[in-house]
Amino acid sequence: MARRKSSKRAQPRGIEQLAPGRVINPLEPISILSEEEVASLHTASLEILKKHGMRFSLPEARKILREAGASVDEDNAMVRFDPDLVMEYVAKAPGAFTLHARNPIHHLHLDQRHINFSSVSSAPHATDSLNGRRAGNREDFEKFLKLTQMVNVAHGSAGYPVEPIDIDVPIRHLHATRSIVTLTDKTFRLYNHNRQRTLDALEMTRIIHGLGRDAFEKTPCVFASINPNSPREYDASMLWGMIECALAGQALMISPFILAGAMAPSSLAGALAQQNAEALAGIAFCQMVRAGTPVTYGGFVSNADMKSGAPAFGTPEHVKTTLVIGQMARHYGLPYRAANANASNAVDAQAAYESQMCLWACLVSGATYVYHGLGWLEGGLSASIEKFIVDAEMIQGLVEAIRPIDFSPEELAVDAIGEIPPGGHFFGSAHTIERYEHAFYHPMLSDWRNFESWSEAGAPDAAQRAAQIADNLLKAYEAPPLDDSIALELDEFIAKREAEGGAPLQ
Amino acid sequence: MARRKSSKRAQPRGIEQLAPGRVINPLEPISILSEEEVASLHTASLEILKKHGMRFSLPEARKILREAGASVDEDNAMVRFDPDLVMEYVAKAPGAFTLHARNPIHHLHLDQRHINFSSVSSAPHATDSLNGRRAGNREDFEKFLKLTQMVNVAHGSAGYPVEPIDIDVPIRHLHATRSIVTLTDKTFRLYNHNRQRTLDALEMTRIIHGLGRDAFEKTPCVFASINPNSPREYDASMLWGMIECALAGQALMISPFILAGAMAPSSLAGALAQQNAEALAGIAFCQMVRAGTPVTYGGFVSNADMKSGAPAFGTPEHVKTTLVIGQMARHYGLPYRAANANASNAVDAQAAYESQMCLWACLVSGATYVYHGLGWLEGGLSASIEKFIVDAEMIQGLVEAIRPIDFSPEELAVDAIGEIPPGGHFFGSAHTIERYEHAFYHPMLSDWRNFESWSEAGAPDAAQRAAQIADNLLKAYEAPPLDDSIALELDEFIAKREAEGGAPLQ
Repeated sequence: MARRKSSKRAQPRGIEQLAPGRVINPLEPISILSEEEVASLHTASLEILKKHGMRFSLPEARKILREAGASVDEDNAMVRFDPDLVMEYVAKAPGAFTLHARNPIHHLHLDQRHINFSSVSSAPHATDSLNGRRAGNREDFEKFLKLTQMVNVAHGSAGYPVEPIDIDVPIRHLHATRSIVTLTDKTFRLYNHNRQRTLDALEMTRIIHGLGRDAFEKTPCVFASINPNSPREYDASMLWGMIECALAGQALMISPFILAGAMAPSSLAGALAQQNAEALAGIAFCQMVRAGTPVTYGGFVSNADMKSGAPAFGTPEHVKTTLVIGQMARHYGLPYRAANANASNAVDAQAAYESQMCLWACLVSGATYVYHGLGWLEGGLSASIEKFIVDAEMIQGLVEAIRPIDFSPEELAVDAIGEIPPGGHFFGSAHTIERYEHAFYHPMLSDWRNFESWSEAGAPDAAQRAAQIADNLLKAYEAPPLDDSIALELDEFIAKREAEGGAPLQ
Repeated sequence: MARRKSSKRAQPRGIEQLAPGRVINPLEPISILSEEEVASLHTASLEILKKHGMRFSLPEARKILREAGASVDEDNAMVRFDPDLVMEYVAKAPGAFTLHARNPIHHLHLDQRHINFSSVSSAPHATDSLNGRRAGNREDFEKFLKLTQMVNVAHGSAGYPVEPIDIDVPIRHLHATRSIVTLTDKTFRLYNHNRQRTLDALEMTRIIHGLGRDAFEKTPCVFASINPNSPREYDASMLWGMIECALAGQALMISPFILAGAMAPSSLAGALAQQNAEALAGIAFCQMVRAGTPVTYGGFVSNADMKSGAPAFGTPEHVKTTLVIGQMARHYGLPYRAANANASNAVDAQAAYESQMCLWACLVSGATYVYHGLGWLEGGLSASIEKFIVDAEMIQGLVEAIRPIDFSPEELAVDAIGEIPPGGHFFGSAHTIERYEHAFYHPMLSDWRNFESWSEAGAPDAAQRAAQIADNLLKAYEAPPLDDSIALELDEFIAKREAEGGAPLQ
């Protein structure tokens, strides 16, 4: 668990934050389903896979499935699964694993005990209050990576924070991955848009970790995020991602992204049955490729606004699905990936309450990896500089809130209480003086000045203060050290692949 | 539990809200303390009461305490308690009770199963974005009461939302209470600033409920909120409140308000030991006045910012104390009162995330009465019109999030899932069409339009939209029906008491 306070040395001037380090969640997760309901959901999911099946849109994947014993219809690429077959392969997935960062203090422990938060990924736009909303570009892409490196509760990046559209597509993955692995020394994700990009990113990961091929295969250092094309299809790029990452010993986060009412039934039970079916099929497939492949179980199930079809996040339904999916993850004994999201267009009260609906749900459902933990806005259409800082503060608050209380006699303070007369105050007591400096959480963003002082200072709201904090963090950014020989190997690899024309578009 | 949707008839045009009704919290509360830690905290509290004691600054109270067996030192008004004596009397408090509203659909069930939210109380200022911040006054006072009546998740008022300083002090309680009991038909609180005001408010409560004295004594219809003068003192006004309410069969919420580091040790264990000692002493005293007096156990324990001394709310420490106090309430088998608070000066992201830290903590700690549930801003120095609506939306979200999911075969929808081809969509399916209208929560405040539509509409943030919603609710306000004879009796009582000069200032 993170220590209470970071050393002064590591902090930009005037910015308080928790020290880096792993976060243990000691809360007993909330179980909202009865055992019978868990069984019903499980059974319905397996029935979907047996009766209706899923489409696996890649012949090489269907070959693996057929050989493992699934029933494959080559005419329409549909694969049906016997329930026992699914569970036989799901059981091969490890219950916990470590995702390695090149700086060991940033290793992620993915299990049923630690909670980790990643920064936003895959937003088409970047936004901040000074410059407004613009299409993703390399400069913004790198800004978010620098914030990810500087903010200690950002435990890793999880993809391109914004799409750097000013880099040519065939070589984008090479330069984007280079930025990710050099601007931060935390864990990251690769994009499996197609097979070649996956292979290139795997090789760059191996190089940055300074590992030989054998050691790399035994060391999960990167993950791909696998979303079926819901309902009930894994497309070729996802299947290549699963195959190549599993063969390389790397991790896969299997997370159906489902808007109930659009990509699944509008009944939550139905949406969850489908999510569970799709997740189990994906996890089983990964284990068919290579038994023991590190995977997370999860889902990102919210709902569409049925008036407009617009996606909604941080809704009551989103909270419920987060709790249920967490309970199913425990049922299967797998690490659980969930997400922090909101549908607000501004860094306002809505952005905060929708996100905190998600964050609390992640906390009490036992999530071990919280995707889009920092910076997501507008239903994921923008990565927001200010929201990144608001999220950092909210996450810090949760991390501190679950730190156990010391109930030793000195802390229970019966004698110290007796020293202060009725109606008196404790500011000057010896017990207080010994403790006051580190007694309480020091916020990064919250402003506790009284109304008059705050008004005199220009009445800055949380979003305005967040912009200033982000600016200070970016000014204080320093790249993490990198061995010259590794940097050279990385550059040579990129130059070679550029000369070869990069990766195909599809 | 509230039904999913209110009837059209009861809603102002264009404002979505949940139907009125009781809310059952089916979540198993989170226990963050081990049994040993509960025992340590309990023992430390009883040791404080035995060794150091508490000041009871009213001779009549000390007489009651002495006769019950407490050790009273008349020279300094200090009272010390044998642990067995405290627990003997605490055990006489009922584990659950109903607080009656004059409209039975607004009765509050205070126990370990229901969760209820009250509107803000006792703010010196009112604020909204149009008119800014101003001293409390009768017009604003009545506005907040009207909102309390109109918003269904405002389960009751809990005092003067703002202080109506334009009403003369000797008669303020008469007119303020008249507004409370006539503008709303929900539960309310009386102020026990002094004995006469308590007696007047009790009589007005009896009149509005149309009860004879005997029936009134058997029907809890109002409560007083009892805060010791922490550390370790109950003053005369609080003690008169406890005595008169207990004798009248009315309820008492015993809630030490403590800023750790200022009014208690800066160690959370110490602050909680003191809160528990003060709460138990108060509850025991109420039971000495009259065994079976309905009480809630609770506390409002946050921390001071140790740099400035400013109060902070919605902090990680506040979350922890909320969880611990809830666990102690269960330990003693008493209904638990907690609170929703924040220290923000604006209705911004900070206001939302600090409040939601509290609201979630209330939800998972088993709180049955959430004080200041709607409208509190600036650490309680302002009641905010816009924050009232933001809170309403956050509370609605939680109420919906804990509504159980239906896992019937029709909802699990295995067949309906089979009808949609892989990669297809569910918008037009029969299963969706049957359900879409009531499938998901309809927000009151959240704006899910896409960025372009929202920008074209003037890019209103959550606070601006909240102002509009509050305005619409106030325009649609209708006073609840009141029997003419009761109105007359109320007016005659007020006229008589005004003629007598009202109540003394102290």
